[in-house]
Amino acid sequence: MTDSVGIVETKISSFGKLTLENGSIISPLELAYETYGTLNSKKDNAILVCHALSGDAHAAGFHKNSDKPGWWDAYIGPGKAFDTNKYFVISSNVIGGCMGSSGPTSINPVTGRQFGSSFPFVSIGDMVNAQELLVSHFGIEKLFCVSGGSMGGMQALQWAVALPERVVNCIVMATSAEHSAQQISFNEVGRQAILSDPNWNGGDYGEVPPRKGLALARMIGHVTYLSDELMREKFGRKPPKGNIKSTDFAVGSYLVYQGESFVDRFDANSYIYVTKALDHFSLGKAETLSLAFSKVKCRFLVIAYSSDWLYPPYQSREIVKSLEVNAIPVSYCEINISKGHDSFLVPNAEQTHLIHHFLENS
Amino acid sequence: MTDSVGIVETKISSFGKLTLENGSIISPLELAYETYGTLNSKKDNAILVCHALSGDAHAAGFHKNSDKPGWWDAYIGPGKAFDTNKYFVISSNVIGGCMGSSGPTSINPVTGRQFGSSFPFVSIGDMVNAQELLVSHFGIEKLFCVSGGSMGGMQALQWAVALPERVVNCIVMATSAEHSAQQISFNEVGRQAILSDPNWNGGDYGEVPPRKGLALARMIGHVTYLSDELMREKFGRKPPKGNIKSTDFAVGSYLVYQGESFVDRFDANSYIYVTKALDHFSLGKAETLSLAFSKVKCRFLVIAYSSDWLYPPYQSREIVKSLEVNAIPVSYCEINISKGHDSFLVPNAEQTHLIHHFLENS
Repeated sequence: MTDSVGIVETKISSFGKLTLENGSIISPLELAYETYGTLNSKKDNAILVCHALSGDAHAAGFHKNSDKPGWWDAYIGPGKAFDTNKYFVISSNVIGGCMGSSGPTSINPVTGRQFGSSFPFVSIGDMVNAQELLVSHFGIEKLFCVSGGSMGGMQALQWAVALPERVVNCIVMATSAEHSAQQISFNEVGRQAILSDPNWNGGDYGEVPPRKGLALARMIGHVTYLSDELMREKFGRKPPKGNIKSTDFAVGSYLVYQGESFVDRFDANSYIYVTKALDHFSLGKAETLSLAFSKVKCRFLVIAYSSDWLYPPYQSREIVKSLEVNAIPVSYCEINISKGHDSFLVPNAEQTHLIHHFLENS
Repeated sequence: MTDSVGIVETKISSFGKLTLENGSIISPLELAYETYGTLNSKKDNAILVCHALSGDAHAAGFHKNSDKPGWWDAYIGPGKAFDTNKYFVISSNVIGGCMGSSGPTSINPVTGRQFGSSFPFVSIGDMVNAQELLVSHFGIEKLFCVSGGSMGGMQALQWAVALPERVVNCIVMATSAEHSAQQISFNEVGRQAILSDPNWNGGDYGEVPPRKGLALARMIGHVTYLSDELMREKFGRKPPKGNIKSTDFAVGSYLVYQGESFVDRFDANSYIYVTKALDHFSLGKAETLSLAFSKVKCRFLVIAYSSDWLYPPYQSREIVKSLEVNAIPVSYCEINISKGHDSFLVPNAEQTHLIHHFLENS
């Protein structure tokens, strides 16, 4: 495949320590990351892509002996939206997660066991501060662009606001400057599902994780990532597939399967930590948001999706409005698509075109 | 209060048996019901109101020593939308439920224990057939009106379709001719939460019910009954109230409280039975729905709510379209309101006006 970055590998970098916004310290700090393309000699062609809730550092290409592409493979590669012939793309796993970066599944050197719930609470700001260490490690002063959808969009916003000198362009999709009560609710029910699982054990479950609770949390989340229309096209009222006996409908067996397979690759504590980081992130709204954007120095591309009811377009328009109040250059586009919140992950010619041109015109 | 039906009492009527659509038999069949107003000598002033998922027979007035009004007290009483000075209003608990009518919590005379999961599966059609026994018991040949919101609306539609000779007017709110994949999904995740609770025990939990599973199911449901806008007004991003330690936000403590208090009044098996009845109800759509309505003989008032994303207005418009195809008299109104799916339960002058006039003009 000429438009693929090909075989890639997740690397781990270790940093001395990171002091979190709440004063806690993660030491050592480990960050899992991948890179695609080549950093030029001026080091001014780097793009940082930030993943969403259940993502990881593997954003493009393939791992050896796997046919599963990275989560944004549709947009990262030679000639693609984030063109690796021109740009050096960095993707790292968030701290608090469970895909290689420091988080609740990391081993506490003092006890020799997983940190579990003794791992400190992390914020979106902390995730960005950890990414900054990685960016500095590459000797990059300014990111040509930082981009992401959903929680990735929050990280990109945080970069633009907290580290204005280090960002030239910012592309955010399907995101919000803060969670609404409804967005908090869906995460909260997911967390309560984990807490309700008898295997939860206050977060110190070791080898016997709260599988059922985490699966339920994922099922709830999954419904919110799709749209009414997409679910009708995909499942309608069809009978269940496969051997999942507990449901009478195809959409039910699909959700049960999604829940169960998620548990094999994700950690329940991380789910709690990362959703809490999402819910606590707040740049405010209206005047407060405008004030938050007052020191921003980059250009913006903001993309929302017509069928995204979890992060509705009005939240993107609030971001755009507060950027405009500050006379910050911003392009806004609402893409008409039926794929719901997950639209930012789906191959889409319009989105490719938008990103490509926005970067070309920088 | 001159507009209240005052102190009321839930009564139980026992019928020999009911053969369900799937061939199973409930015997004896018990129905919990309340009535308000007086049946006239012609017996042509009866209105049947049908409750939603977690409702019961107590639709109006107050039980002795309680200050909790019936679920539709805003609409049933002297001078109200369903004017008890003129009409005889009947409200009965659905079969499969747990508020006095036959359901999984009924005692199996053979074992002396609750039926639990050995209670037969019931459909919306079965619920209506049980109500028909009660209506006949009063000697009522034709209901002047049958009405309900959400699942109550499905029952009202079923009356109009299955028993066309017995209905003069039909008022449905916030309902659908069949559940979409998204609507099934939310119920499915709720059922999976109950099934995931170790106390579930295949439905035979006796004295130790799956409290946590049912509470989670209710939390999920509750989020879908409200709207983004209402939740923002009511909770926003405020910190938690009370002593619920497991959540960082007011909306979280509210949901946890709603879940826990629901468990005190509702049965987990009934939750599964009634949500399955909802999900399996299907009058079809487009041509199929028009065919289903071809024998209908009553007038219709169909009401939808702008902020109801669980039963979106387009589902009401599909009902209206298929009625119009059959030249059945139908008025449609979409009320602009921020209360979400629960709007049909909330006092609303526009809705009162619509119901009042629709009935007056019959």
